[in-house]
Amino acid sequence: MIVEESLARTRDYIRQWRRDGSRIGLVPTMGYFHAGHCALMKKARERADRVVVSLFVNPTQFGPSEDFSQYPRDMEGDCEKARLSGVDLLFCPRADEIYDRQDQTAVTVSELTKGLCGASRPGHFRGVTTVVSKLFNIVQPDFAVFGEKDYQQLAVIKRMVADLHIPVQVIGHPTVREPDGLAMSSRNVYLSEPERQAALVLHKALQTVRQEASRPDGSRRTAELVAIGRQMIASEPLCRLDYFSVVDGSSLQEHEEITAGARALGAMIVGSRVRLIDNLELLPGRGEG
Amino acid sequence: MIVEESLARTRDYIRQWRRDGSRIGLVPTMGYFHAGHCALMKKARERADRVVVSLFVNPTQFGPSEDFSQYPRDMEGDCEKARLSGVDLLFCPRADEIYDRQDQTAVTVSELTKGLCGASRPGHFRGVTTVVSKLFNIVQPDFAVFGEKDYQQLAVIKRMVADLHIPVQVIGHPTVREPDGLAMSSRNVYLSEPERQAALVLHKALQTVRQEASRPDGSRRTAELVAIGRQMIASEPLCRLDYFSVVDGSSLQEHEEITAGARALGAMIVGSRVRLIDNLELLPGRGEG
Repeated sequence: MIVEESLARTRDYIRQWRRDGSRIGLVPTMGYFHAGHCALMKKARERADRVVVSLFVNPTQFGPSEDFSQYPRDMEGDCEKARLSGVDLLFCPRADEIYDRQDQTAVTVSELTKGLCGASRPGHFRGVTTVVSKLFNIVQPDFAVFGEKDYQQLAVIKRMVADLHIPVQVIGHPTVREPDGLAMSSRNVYLSEPERQAALVLHKALQTVRQEASRPDGSRRTAELVAIGRQMIASEPLCRLDYFSVVDGSSLQEHEEITAGARALGAMIVGSRVRLIDNLELLPGRGEG
Repeated sequence: MIVEESLARTRDYIRQWRRDGSRIGLVPTMGYFHAGHCALMKKARERADRVVVSLFVNPTQFGPSEDFSQYPRDMEGDCEKARLSGVDLLFCPRADEIYDRQDQTAVTVSELTKGLCGASRPGHFRGVTTVVSKLFNIVQPDFAVFGEKDYQQLAVIKRMVADLHIPVQVIGHPTVREPDGLAMSSRNVYLSEPERQAALVLHKALQTVRQEASRPDGSRRTAELVAIGRQMIASEPLCRLDYFSVVDGSSLQEHEEITAGARALGAMIVGSRVRLIDNLELLPGRGEG
Protein backbone atom coordinates (compact mmCIF):
# COMPACT_ATOMS: atom_id res chain seq x y z
CA MET A 1 0.00 0.00 0.00
CA ILE A 2 1.24 3.47 -0.95
CA VAL A 3 0.94 6.21 1.68
CA GLU A 4 1.14 9.57 -0.03
CA GLU A 5 0.91 13.17 1.17
CA SER A 6 1.61 15.03 -2.07
CA LEU A 7 -1.22 16.02 -4.45
CA ALA A 8 1.13 15.95 -7.44
CA ARG A 9 2.40 12.45 -6.74
CA THR A 10 -1.12 11.22 -6.03
CA ARG A 11 -2.18 12.59 -9.42
CA ASP A 12 0.80 10.77 -10.98
CA TYR A 13 -0.33 7.42 -9.56
CA ILE A 14 -3.90 8.03 -10.66
CA ARG A 15 -2.82 9.06 -14.16
CA GLN A 16 -0.85 5.82 -14.52
CA TRP A 17 -3.79 3.75 -13.30
CA ARG A 18 -6.17 5.56 -15.65
CA ARG A 19 -3.81 4.89 -18.53
CA ASP A 20 -3.90 1.18 -17.63
CA GLY A 21 -7.70 1.30 -17.84
CA SER A 22 -8.14 0.70 -14.11
CA ARG A 23 -11.47 1.39 -12.40
CA ILE A 24 -10.77 3.61 -9.39
CA GLY A 25 -12.79 3.74 -6.18
CA LEU A 26 -12.45 6.42 -3.50
CA VAL A 27 -13.37 6.28 0.19
CA PRO A 28 -13.12 9.76 1.72
CA THR A 29 -12.47 9.60 5.48
CA MET A 30 -11.22 11.59 8.45
CA GLY A 31 -9.23 8.60 9.74
CA TYR A 32 -9.26 6.82 13.11
CA PHE A 33 -10.62 3.80 11.31
CA HIS A 34 -13.16 1.41 12.80
CA ALA A 35 -15.03 -1.53 11.28
CA GLY A 36 -17.38 0.92 9.52
CA HIS A 37 -14.54 2.50 7.56
CA CYS A 38 -13.09 -0.92 6.78
CA ALA A 39 -16.46 -2.05 5.41
CA LEU A 40 -16.48 0.94 3.04
CA MET A 41 -12.94 0.07 1.90
CA LYS A 42 -13.89 -3.54 1.31
CA LYS A 43 -16.97 -2.50 -0.65
CA ALA A 44 -14.70 -0.30 -2.82
CA ARG A 45 -12.22 -3.19 -3.12
CA GLU A 46 -14.96 -5.45 -4.56
CA ARG A 47 -15.83 -2.92 -7.26
CA ALA A 48 -12.53 -1.30 -8.20
CA ASP A 49 -9.17 -2.21 -9.65
CA ARG A 50 -7.57 0.46 -7.48
CA VAL A 51 -8.86 1.65 -4.12
CA VAL A 52 -7.87 5.10 -2.87
CA VAL A 53 -8.70 6.14 0.70
CA SER A 54 -8.30 9.79 1.58
CA LEU A 55 -7.50 10.55 5.21
CA PHE A 56 -8.01 14.23 5.92
CA VAL A 57 -9.41 15.80 9.07
CA ASN A 58 -11.05 18.69 7.26
CA PRO A 59 -10.87 21.85 9.37
CA THR A 60 -13.64 23.67 7.46
CA GLN A 61 -16.36 21.20 8.42
CA PHE A 62 -15.85 21.80 12.16
CA GLY A 63 -17.46 24.78 13.88
CA PRO A 64 -15.37 27.07 16.11
CA SER A 65 -16.66 25.34 19.28
CA GLU A 66 -16.36 21.82 17.86
CA ASP A 67 -13.77 19.09 18.33
CA PHE A 68 -11.39 19.65 15.37
CA SER A 69 -8.20 19.81 17.45
CA GLN A 70 -9.37 16.92 19.65
CA TYR A 71 -10.54 14.72 16.77
CA PRO A 72 -8.86 11.33 17.37
CA ARG A 73 -5.86 10.46 15.21
CA ASP A 74 -3.91 7.19 14.85
CA MET A 75 -1.82 7.16 11.71
CA GLU A 76 -0.06 3.90 12.45
CA GLY A 77 -3.22 2.00 13.27
CA ASP A 78 -5.00 3.52 10.24
CA CYS A 79 -2.24 2.39 7.86
CA GLU A 80 -2.49 -1.15 9.16
CA LYS A 81 -6.30 -1.26 8.90
CA ALA A 82 -6.30 0.23 5.41
CA ARG A 83 -3.65 -2.25 4.27
CA LEU A 84 -5.65 -5.18 5.65
CA SER A 85 -8.76 -3.85 3.85
CA GLY A 86 -6.99 -4.02 0.50
CA VAL A 87 -6.38 -0.29 -0.04
CA ASP A 88 -3.87 0.60 -2.77
CA LEU A 89 -3.25 4.24 -1.91
CA LEU A 90 -3.80 6.03 1.40
CA PHE A 91 -3.88 9.72 0.47
CA CYS A 92 -3.09 11.94 3.49
CA PRO A 93 -2.85 15.50 2.15
CA ARG A 94 -1.64 18.47 4.15
CA ALA A 95 -4.27 21.10 4.94
CA ASP A 96 -2.20 23.83 3.27
CA GLU A 97 -2.19 21.87 0.00
CA ILE A 98 -5.94 21.25 0.06
CA TYR A 99 -6.60 24.87 1.07
CA ASP A 100 -4.25 27.28 -0.66
CA ARG A 101 -3.42 30.47 1.27
CA GLN A 102 -5.65 32.43 -1.13
CA ASP A 103 -8.47 29.87 -1.14
CA GLN A 104 -11.88 31.52 -1.58
CA THR A 105 -14.02 28.96 -3.41
CA ALA A 106 -16.89 27.02 -1.86
CA VAL A 107 -19.41 24.48 -3.07
CA THR A 108 -22.79 24.71 -1.38
CA VAL A 109 -26.03 22.73 -1.45
CA SER A 110 -28.95 24.78 -0.17
CA GLU A 111 -32.20 23.00 0.70
CA LEU A 112 -30.88 19.62 1.88
CA THR A 113 -28.46 21.24 4.32
CA LYS A 114 -30.96 23.45 6.13
CA GLY A 115 -32.34 21.02 8.70
CA LEU A 116 -31.05 18.18 10.89
CA CYS A 117 -27.25 18.37 11.33
CA GLY A 118 -27.17 21.46 9.09
CA ALA A 119 -29.30 23.35 11.61
CA SER A 120 -27.08 22.42 14.57
CA ARG A 121 -23.77 22.78 12.76
CA PRO A 122 -23.80 25.94 10.59
CA GLY A 123 -21.19 25.75 7.84
CA HIS A 124 -20.60 22.02 8.36
CA PHE A 125 -22.00 20.85 5.04
CA ARG A 126 -20.40 23.71 3.15
CA GLY A 127 -17.08 22.37 4.47
CA VAL A 128 -18.03 18.82 3.49
CA THR A 129 -19.20 19.57 -0.05
CA THR A 130 -16.21 21.83 -0.71
CA VAL A 131 -13.63 19.30 0.45
CA VAL A 132 -15.36 16.39 -1.30
CA SER A 133 -15.35 18.42 -4.54
CA LYS A 134 -11.62 18.93 -4.13
CA LEU A 135 -10.99 15.25 -3.41
CA PHE A 136 -13.09 14.19 -6.41
CA ASN A 137 -11.11 16.54 -8.66
CA ILE A 138 -7.77 15.28 -7.35
CA VAL A 139 -8.54 11.56 -7.41
CA GLN A 140 -11.11 11.54 -10.26
CA PRO A 141 -12.55 8.23 -9.11
CA ASP A 142 -15.13 6.23 -11.04
CA PHE A 143 -17.08 5.85 -7.81
CA ALA A 144 -16.92 6.88 -4.17
CA VAL A 145 -18.31 5.08 -1.11
CA PHE A 146 -19.88 6.89 1.87
CA GLY A 147 -21.46 5.44 4.99
CA GLU A 148 -25.19 5.75 5.65
CA LYS A 149 -24.55 6.68 9.27
CA ASP A 150 -23.96 10.19 7.94
CA TYR A 151 -27.23 9.95 6.04
CA GLN A 152 -27.72 13.66 5.43
CA GLN A 153 -24.13 13.92 4.19
CA LEU A 154 -24.76 11.08 1.74
CA ALA A 155 -27.94 12.76 0.45
CA VAL A 156 -26.15 16.12 0.13
CA ILE A 157 -23.24 14.62 -1.79
CA LYS A 158 -25.58 12.72 -4.13
CA ARG A 159 -27.39 16.00 -4.81
CA MET A 160 -24.13 17.89 -5.42
CA VAL A 161 -22.88 15.21 -7.81
CA ALA A 162 -26.15 15.22 -9.76
CA ASP A 163 -26.41 19.03 -9.87
CA LEU A 164 -22.81 19.67 -10.93
CA HIS A 165 -22.82 16.67 -13.31
CA ILE A 166 -19.74 15.29 -11.55
CA PRO A 167 -18.72 12.05 -13.29
CA VAL A 168 -18.50 10.03 -10.07
CA GLN A 169 -20.95 7.36 -8.94
CA VAL A 170 -21.87 7.81 -5.26
CA ILE A 171 -22.46 4.57 -3.38
CA GLY A 172 -23.93 4.37 0.11
CA HIS A 173 -23.04 1.62 2.58
CA PRO A 174 -25.29 0.52 5.48
CA THR A 175 -24.26 1.63 8.95
CA VAL A 176 -21.95 -0.81 10.71
CA ARG A 177 -22.88 -1.36 14.37
CA GLU A 178 -21.42 -2.75 17.57
CA PRO A 179 -23.04 -6.04 18.67
CA ASP A 180 -25.46 -4.13 20.93
CA GLY A 181 -26.54 -1.83 18.09
CA LEU A 182 -24.47 1.32 18.72
CA ALA A 183 -23.43 2.83 15.38
CA MET A 184 -19.67 2.70 14.87
CA SER A 185 -18.11 6.16 15.16
CA SER A 186 -14.60 7.46 15.68
CA ARG A 187 -16.07 9.58 18.47
CA ASN A 188 -17.22 6.51 20.47
CA VAL A 189 -13.67 6.32 21.88
CA TYR A 190 -14.45 9.38 24.01
CA LEU A 191 -17.31 7.69 25.90
CA SER A 192 -16.87 6.60 29.52
CA GLU A 193 -18.43 3.24 30.39
CA PRO A 194 -21.70 4.76 31.74
CA GLU A 195 -21.86 7.07 28.71
CA ARG A 196 -21.26 4.11 26.40
CA GLN A 197 -24.30 2.39 27.94
CA ALA A 198 -26.41 5.53 27.81
CA ALA A 199 -25.47 6.15 24.16
CA LEU A 200 -27.45 3.06 23.16
CA VAL A 201 -30.67 4.99 23.68
CA LEU A 202 -30.42 6.62 20.25
CA HIS A 203 -30.44 3.32 18.38
CA LYS A 204 -33.15 1.98 20.69
CA ALA A 205 -35.31 5.06 20.03
CA LEU A 206 -34.87 4.63 16.26
CA GLN A 207 -35.78 0.95 16.51
CA THR A 208 -38.83 1.65 18.64
CA VAL A 209 -40.04 4.23 16.17
CA ARG A 210 -39.48 1.81 13.30
CA GLN A 211 -41.44 -0.89 15.11
CA GLU A 212 -44.31 1.54 15.66
CA ALA A 213 -44.26 2.63 12.00
CA SER A 214 -44.15 -0.97 10.78
CA ARG A 215 -46.97 -2.33 12.95
CA PRO A 216 -50.12 -2.80 10.86
CA ASP A 217 -52.05 -0.65 13.35
CA GLY A 218 -49.08 1.55 14.28
CA SER A 219 -48.93 5.29 13.79
CA ARG A 220 -47.89 6.81 10.46
CA ARG A 221 -48.08 10.34 11.82
CA THR A 222 -44.70 12.06 11.89
CA ALA A 223 -45.50 14.09 15.03
CA GLU A 224 -46.41 10.95 16.98
CA LEU A 225 -43.36 9.01 15.84
CA VAL A 226 -41.05 11.91 16.62
CA ALA A 227 -42.61 12.26 20.09
CA ILE A 228 -41.82 8.61 20.86
CA GLY A 229 -38.17 9.03 19.86
CA ARG A 230 -37.70 12.33 21.69
CA GLN A 231 -39.25 11.01 24.86
CA MET A 232 -36.97 7.98 24.94
CA ILE A 233 -33.83 10.10 24.54
CA ALA A 234 -35.08 12.67 27.06
CA SER A 235 -35.47 9.86 29.62
CA GLU A 236 -31.73 9.10 29.51
CA PRO A 237 -30.04 11.48 31.98
CA LEU A 238 -26.57 11.25 30.42
CA CYS A 239 -27.87 12.25 26.95
CA ARG A 240 -29.04 15.64 25.73
CA LEU A 241 -31.19 15.64 22.58
CA ASP A 242 -29.98 17.69 19.62
CA TYR A 243 -32.72 16.63 17.20
CA PHE A 244 -34.96 13.66 16.44
CA SER A 245 -36.77 13.90 13.12
CA VAL A 246 -38.76 11.76 10.70
CA VAL A 247 -38.36 12.84 7.09
CA ASP A 248 -38.67 11.72 3.50
CA GLY A 249 -35.51 9.75 2.67
CA SER A 250 -34.79 11.70 -0.52
CA SER A 251 -35.85 15.29 0.09
CA LEU A 252 -35.20 15.17 3.87
CA GLN A 253 -38.45 17.13 4.18
CA GLU A 254 -40.89 16.45 6.99
CA HIS A 255 -44.40 15.43 5.92
CA GLU A 256 -47.46 15.05 8.10
CA GLU A 257 -47.68 11.32 7.40
CA ILE A 258 -44.81 9.04 6.47
CA THR A 259 -44.58 7.24 3.12
CA ALA A 260 -42.23 4.70 1.53
CA GLY A 261 -38.57 5.49 2.19
CA ALA A 262 -39.31 7.58 5.29
CA ARG A 263 -36.36 7.78 7.64
CA ALA A 264 -35.86 8.66 11.29
CA LEU A 265 -32.68 10.55 12.14
CA GLY A 266 -31.36 11.63 15.50
CA ALA A 267 -28.46 13.45 17.09
CA MET A 268 -27.60 13.84 20.77
CA ILE A 269 -24.78 14.94 23.02
CA VAL A 270 -23.62 12.24 25.41
CA GLY A 271 -22.01 13.44 28.63
CA SER A 272 -20.61 16.92 28.26
CA ARG A 273 -19.29 16.86 24.72
CA VAL A 274 -19.62 13.73 22.55
CA ARG A 275 -22.08 14.35 19.73
CA LEU A 276 -23.41 11.14 18.18
CA ILE A 277 -25.80 10.64 15.25
CA ASP A 278 -27.70 7.68 13.86
CA ASN A 279 -30.63 6.93 11.54
CA LEU A 280 -32.91 4.14 10.36
CA GLU A 281 -35.24 3.63 7.44
CA LEU A 282 -38.81 3.36 8.80
CA LEU A 283 -40.67 2.02 5.77
CA PRO A 284 -38.92 0.23 2.94
CA GLY A 285 -38.86 2.34 -0.18
CA ARG A 286 -37.06 4.53 -2.57
CA GLY A 287 -34.66 5.98 0.03
CA GLU A 288 -31.19 7.34 -0.66
CA GLY A 289 -28.34 4.92 -0.11
CA MET B 1 -19.02 19.37 -37.04
CA ILE B 2 -21.37 17.66 -34.60
CA VAL B 3 -24.16 19.78 -33.11
CA GLU B 4 -25.43 18.12 -29.96
CA GLU B 5 -28.04 19.02 -27.37
CA SER B 6 -27.95 15.91 -25.17
CA LEU B 7 -25.59 15.63 -22.20
CA ALA B 8 -25.49 11.85 -22.46
CA ARG B 9 -24.55 11.83 -26.16
CA THR B 10 -21.98 14.59 -25.58
CA ARG B 11 -20.43 12.45 -22.86
CA ASP B 12 -20.37 9.51 -25.30
CA TYR B 13 -18.39 11.50 -27.87
CA ILE B 14 -15.98 12.73 -25.21
CA ARG B 15 -15.49 9.22 -23.81
CA GLN B 16 -14.61 7.94 -27.27
CA TRP B 17 -12.16 10.79 -27.85
CA ARG B 18 -10.55 10.24 -24.43
CA ARG B 19 -10.18 6.57 -25.24
CA ASP B 20 -8.37 7.54 -28.45
CA GLY B 21 -5.96 9.64 -26.36
CA SER B 22 -7.22 12.93 -27.82
CA ARG B 23 -6.43 16.24 -26.15
CA ILE B 24 -9.71 18.09 -25.68
CA GLY B 25 -10.17 21.86 -25.61
CA LEU B 26 -13.35 23.64 -24.50
CA VAL B 27 -14.55 27.15 -25.33
CA PRO B 28 -17.57 28.03 -23.15
CA THR B 29 -19.79 30.65 -24.84
CA MET B 30 -23.25 32.18 -24.83
CA GLY B 31 -23.35 32.19 -28.63
CA TYR B 32 -23.98 34.98 -31.14
CA PHE B 33 -20.43 34.53 -32.30
CA HIS B 34 -18.16 37.38 -33.39
CA ALA B 35 -14.47 37.44 -34.31
CA GLY B 36 -13.58 37.32 -30.58
CA HIS B 37 -15.30 33.96 -30.13
CA CYS B 38 -13.77 32.65 -33.35
CA ALA B 39 -10.30 33.63 -32.10
CA LEU B 40 -10.87 31.58 -28.93
CA MET B 41 -11.98 28.62 -31.05
CA LYS B 42 -8.93 28.92 -33.28
CA LYS B 43 -6.64 29.12 -30.24
CA ALA B 44 -8.25 25.93 -28.95
CA ARG B 45 -7.93 24.36 -32.41
CA GLU B 46 -4.15 24.95 -32.37
CA ARG B 47 -3.74 23.20 -29.03
CA ALA B 48 -6.29 20.37 -29.09
CA ASP B 49 -7.11 17.25 -31.06
CA ARG B 50 -10.79 17.88 -30.43
CA VAL B 51 -12.41 21.27 -29.93
CA VAL B 52 -15.72 21.49 -28.07
CA VAL B 53 -17.64 24.77 -27.96
CA SER B 54 -20.51 25.04 -25.53
CA LEU B 55 -23.31 27.41 -26.49
CA PHE B 56 -25.55 28.08 -23.54
CA VAL B 57 -27.21 31.35 -22.58
CA ASN B 58 -27.00 30.71 -18.85
CA PRO B 59 -30.06 32.13 -17.09
CA THR B 60 -28.48 32.15 -13.62
CA GLN B 61 -25.79 34.69 -14.53
CA PHE B 62 -28.35 37.33 -15.51
CA GLY B 63 -30.00 39.52 -12.88
CA PRO B 64 -33.79 39.94 -12.82
CA SER B 65 -33.56 43.33 -14.55
CA GLU B 66 -30.93 42.21 -17.08
CA ASP B 67 -31.14 41.18 -20.71
CA PHE B 68 -31.46 37.37 -20.51
CA SER B 69 -34.57 37.11 -22.66
CA GLN B 70 -33.25 39.74 -25.10
CA TYR B 71 -29.76 38.25 -25.34
CA PRO B 72 -29.09 37.92 -29.09
CA ARG B 73 -29.33 34.45 -30.62
CA ASP B 74 -28.41 33.18 -34.11
CA MET B 75 -28.10 29.41 -34.17
CA GLU B 76 -27.63 29.12 -37.93
CA GLY B 77 -24.91 31.78 -38.09
CA ASP B 78 -23.21 30.34 -35.01
CA CYS B 79 -23.04 26.85 -36.54
CA GLU B 80 -21.42 28.23 -39.68
CA LYS B 81 -18.87 30.30 -37.76
CA ALA B 82 -17.98 27.43 -35.43
CA ARG B 83 -17.58 25.06 -38.39
CA LEU B 84 -15.27 27.53 -40.16
CA SER B 85 -13.22 27.89 -36.95
CA GLY B 86 -12.53 24.16 -36.89
CA VAL B 87 -14.86 23.16 -34.04
CA ASP B 88 -15.57 19.42 -33.71
CA LEU B 89 -18.57 19.55 -31.40
CA LEU B 90 -20.98 22.40 -30.77
CA PHE B 91 -22.66 21.51 -27.48
CA CYS B 92 -25.99 23.33 -27.07
CA PRO B 93 -27.60 21.92 -23.91
CA ARG B 94 -31.15 22.63 -22.79
CA ALA B 95 -31.47 24.68 -19.61
CA ASP B 96 -33.54 21.96 -17.94
CA GLU B 97 -30.73 19.44 -18.45
CA ILE B 98 -28.05 21.77 -17.06
CA TYR B 99 -30.32 22.77 -14.17
CA ASP B 100 -32.35 19.85 -12.87
CA ARG B 101 -35.72 20.72 -11.37
CA GLN B 102 -34.32 20.02 -7.90
CA ASP B 103 -31.01 21.83 -8.50
CA GLN B 104 -29.67 23.43 -5.32
CA THR B 105 -25.88 23.39 -5.70
CA ALA B 106 -23.73 26.45 -6.29
CA VAL B 107 -20.02 27.13 -6.66
CA THR B 108 -18.92 30.49 -5.30
CA VAL B 109 -15.69 32.48 -5.23
CA SER B 110 -15.75 35.14 -2.52
CA GLU B 111 -13.10 37.88 -2.57
CA LEU B 112 -12.50 38.22 -6.32
CA THR B 113 -16.21 38.63 -7.04
CA LYS B 114 -16.90 41.44 -4.58
CA GLY B 115 -15.89 44.46 -6.67
CA LEU B 116 -16.10 45.59 -10.30
CA CYS B 117 -18.81 43.67 -12.21
CA GLY B 118 -19.55 41.66 -9.06
CA ALA B 119 -20.65 44.83 -7.28
CA SER B 120 -22.97 45.93 -10.11
CA ARG B 121 -24.31 42.48 -10.91
CA PRO B 122 -25.09 40.59 -7.67
CA GLY B 123 -25.19 36.85 -8.26
CA HIS B 124 -23.61 37.12 -11.71
CA PHE B 125 -20.34 35.35 -10.88
CA ARG B 126 -22.10 32.74 -8.78
CA GLY B 127 -24.02 31.89 -11.96
CA VAL B 128 -20.82 31.86 -14.01
CA THR B 129 -18.76 29.69 -11.65
CA THR B 130 -21.62 27.26 -11.16
CA VAL B 131 -22.31 26.78 -14.87
CA VAL B 132 -18.61 26.57 -15.76
CA SER B 133 -18.19 23.87 -13.09
CA LYS B 134 -21.02 21.93 -14.70
CA LEU B 135 -19.58 22.35 -18.21
CA PHE B 136 -16.13 21.27 -17.00
CA ASN B 137 -17.62 18.16 -15.41
CA ILE B 138 -19.60 17.27 -18.53
CA VAL B 139 -16.86 17.88 -21.11
CA GLN B 140 -13.82 17.14 -18.89
CA PRO B 141 -11.52 19.13 -21.18
CA ASP B 142 -7.74 19.24 -20.85
CA PHE B 143 -7.95 23.00 -21.21
CA ALA B 144 -10.51 25.76 -21.64
CA VAL B 145 -10.12 29.14 -23.36
CA PHE B 146 -11.73 32.35 -22.06
CA GLY B 147 -11.47 35.88 -23.45
CA GLU B 148 -9.67 38.62 -21.52
CA LYS B 149 -12.45 41.08 -22.27
CA ASP B 150 -14.24 39.46 -19.33
CA TYR B 151 -11.12 39.91 -17.26
CA GLN B 152 -12.70 39.50 -13.85
CA GLN B 153 -14.47 36.35 -15.05
CA LEU B 154 -11.12 34.93 -16.22
CA ALA B 155 -9.50 35.70 -12.85
CA VAL B 156 -12.46 34.19 -10.96
CA ILE B 157 -12.39 31.00 -13.03
CA LYS B 158 -8.63 30.62 -12.60
CA ARG B 159 -9.12 30.98 -8.84
CA MET B 160 -11.97 28.44 -8.78
CA VAL B 161 -9.93 25.93 -10.78
CA ALA B 162 -6.91 26.33 -8.49
CA ASP B 163 -8.98 26.17 -5.28
CA LEU B 164 -11.06 23.14 -6.25
CA HIS B 165 -8.05 21.42 -7.89
CA ILE B 166 -10.03 21.05 -11.11
CA PRO B 167 -7.84 19.24 -13.65
CA VAL B 168 -8.42 21.80 -16.42
CA GLN B 169 -5.86 24.33 -17.68
CA VAL B 170 -7.43 27.79 -18.03
CA ILE B 171 -6.08 29.84 -20.94
CA GLY B 172 -6.81 33.52 -21.48
CA HIS B 173 -6.98 35.11 -24.92
CA PRO B 174 -6.39 38.84 -25.61
CA THR B 175 -9.46 40.92 -26.35
CA VAL B 176 -10.33 41.10 -30.04
CA ARG B 177 -11.28 44.60 -31.18
CA GLU B 178 -12.98 46.36 -34.06
CA PRO B 179 -10.54 48.38 -36.23
CA ASP B 180 -11.34 51.53 -34.21
CA GLY B 181 -10.60 49.79 -30.90
CA LEU B 182 -14.10 48.88 -29.64
CA ALA B 183 -13.94 45.50 -27.89
CA MET B 184 -15.96 42.87 -29.73
CA SER B 185 -19.14 41.96 -27.84
CA SER B 186 -22.36 40.21 -28.75
CA ARG B 187 -24.11 43.19 -27.21
CA ASN B 188 -22.59 45.66 -29.72
CA VAL B 189 -25.37 44.67 -32.12
CA TYR B 190 -27.81 46.67 -29.98
CA LEU B 191 -25.98 49.98 -30.49
CA SER B 192 -27.43 52.68 -32.75
CA GLU B 193 -24.90 54.48 -34.93
CA PRO B 194 -24.45 57.44 -32.50
CA GLU B 195 -24.20 54.98 -29.59
CA ARG B 196 -21.65 52.95 -31.52
CA GLN B 197 -19.49 56.09 -31.85
CA ALA B 198 -20.01 57.07 -28.21
CA ALA B 199 -19.11 53.55 -27.02
CA LEU B 200 -15.53 54.12 -28.16
CA VAL B 201 -14.95 56.36 -25.15
CA LEU B 202 -14.33 53.35 -22.87
CA HIS B 203 -11.42 52.06 -24.91
CA LYS B 204 -10.11 55.61 -25.33
CA ALA B 205 -10.27 56.20 -21.58
CA LEU B 206 -8.39 52.95 -20.92
CA GLN B 207 -5.74 53.89 -23.49
CA THR B 208 -5.34 57.40 -22.07
CA VAL B 209 -4.88 55.99 -18.60
CA ARG B 210 -2.34 53.50 -19.89
CA GLN B 211 -0.42 56.28 -21.64
CA GLU B 212 -0.37 58.28 -18.43
CA ALA B 213 0.80 55.29 -16.40
CA SER B 214 3.52 54.46 -18.96
CA ARG B 215 4.96 57.96 -19.31
CA PRO B 216 8.27 58.23 -17.42
CA ASP B 217 6.91 61.23 -15.50
CA GLY B 218 3.29 60.05 -15.55
CA SER B 219 1.20 59.35 -12.48
CA ARG B 220 1.34 55.99 -10.74
CA ARG B 221 -1.33 56.98 -8.24
CA THR B 222 -4.50 54.92 -8.60
CA ALA B 223 -6.78 57.78 -7.56
CA GLU B 224 -5.35 60.08 -10.24
CA LEU B 225 -5.51 57.45 -12.98
CA VAL B 226 -9.06 56.52 -12.08
CA ALA B 227 -10.08 60.20 -12.13
CA ILE B 228 -8.78 60.55 -15.71
CA GLY B 229 -10.79 57.57 -16.90
CA ARG B 230 -13.98 58.54 -15.08
CA GLN B 231 -13.83 62.08 -16.36
CA MET B 232 -13.49 60.96 -19.98
CA ILE B 233 -16.49 58.64 -19.74
CA ALA B 234 -18.53 61.25 -17.87
CA SER B 235 -17.89 63.68 -20.74
CA GLU B 236 -19.72 61.41 -23.20
CA PRO B 237 -23.43 62.26 -22.94
CA LEU B 238 -24.65 58.91 -24.39
CA CYS B 239 -22.70 56.89 -21.82
CA ARG B 240 -23.36 56.39 -18.12
CA LEU B 241 -20.44 55.18 -16.03
CA ASP B 242 -20.91 51.97 -14.06
CA TYR B 243 -17.34 51.72 -12.73
CA PHE B 244 -13.82 52.62 -13.73
CA SER B 245 -11.13 51.05 -11.54
CA VAL B 246 -7.40 50.43 -11.46
CA VAL B 247 -6.45 47.24 -9.65
CA ASP B 248 -3.78 44.62 -9.23
CA GLY B 249 -4.14 42.20 -12.14
CA SER B 250 -4.13 39.08 -9.94
CA SER B 251 -5.93 39.99 -6.71
CA LEU B 252 -8.18 42.65 -8.34
CA GLN B 253 -7.49 44.72 -5.23
CA GLU B 254 -6.98 48.47 -5.45
CA HIS B 255 -3.65 49.77 -4.14
CA GLU B 256 -2.62 53.38 -3.59
CA GLU B 257 0.10 53.16 -6.24
CA ILE B 258 0.14 50.82 -9.22
CA THR B 259 2.76 48.12 -9.71
CA ALA B 260 3.63 45.58 -12.42
CA GLY B 261 0.55 43.89 -13.85
CA ALA B 262 -1.80 46.68 -12.79
CA ARG B 263 -4.96 46.78 -14.88
CA ALA B 264 -7.64 49.33 -15.61
CA LEU B 265 -11.20 48.01 -15.97
CA GLY B 266 -14.34 49.86 -16.86
CA ALA B 267 -18.04 49.27 -17.39
CA MET B 268 -20.68 51.66 -18.70
CA ILE B 269 -24.22 51.72 -19.98
CA VAL B 270 -24.54 53.09 -23.49
CA GLY B 271 -27.88 54.66 -24.41
CA SER B 272 -30.63 53.32 -22.21
CA ARG B 273 -29.64 49.70 -21.79
CA VAL B 274 -26.47 48.33 -23.43
CA ARG B 275 -23.88 47.51 -20.76
CA LEU B 276 -20.35 47.24 -22.15
CA ILE B 277 -17.10 46.36 -20.40
CA ASP B 278 -13.42 46.57 -21.36
CA ASN B 279 -9.99 46.52 -19.72
CA LEU B 280 -6.31 47.09 -20.43
CA GLU B 281 -3.07 46.19 -18.70
CA LEU B 282 -1.38 49.42 -17.55
CA LEU B 283 2.10 48.20 -16.72
CA PRO B 284 3.53 44.98 -18.14
CA GLY B 285 3.78 42.32 -15.47
CA ARG B 286 2.50 39.22 -13.86
CA GLY B 287 -1.16 39.82 -14.75
CA GLU B 288 -3.73 37.08 -15.15
CA GLY B 289 -4.38 35.94 -18.70
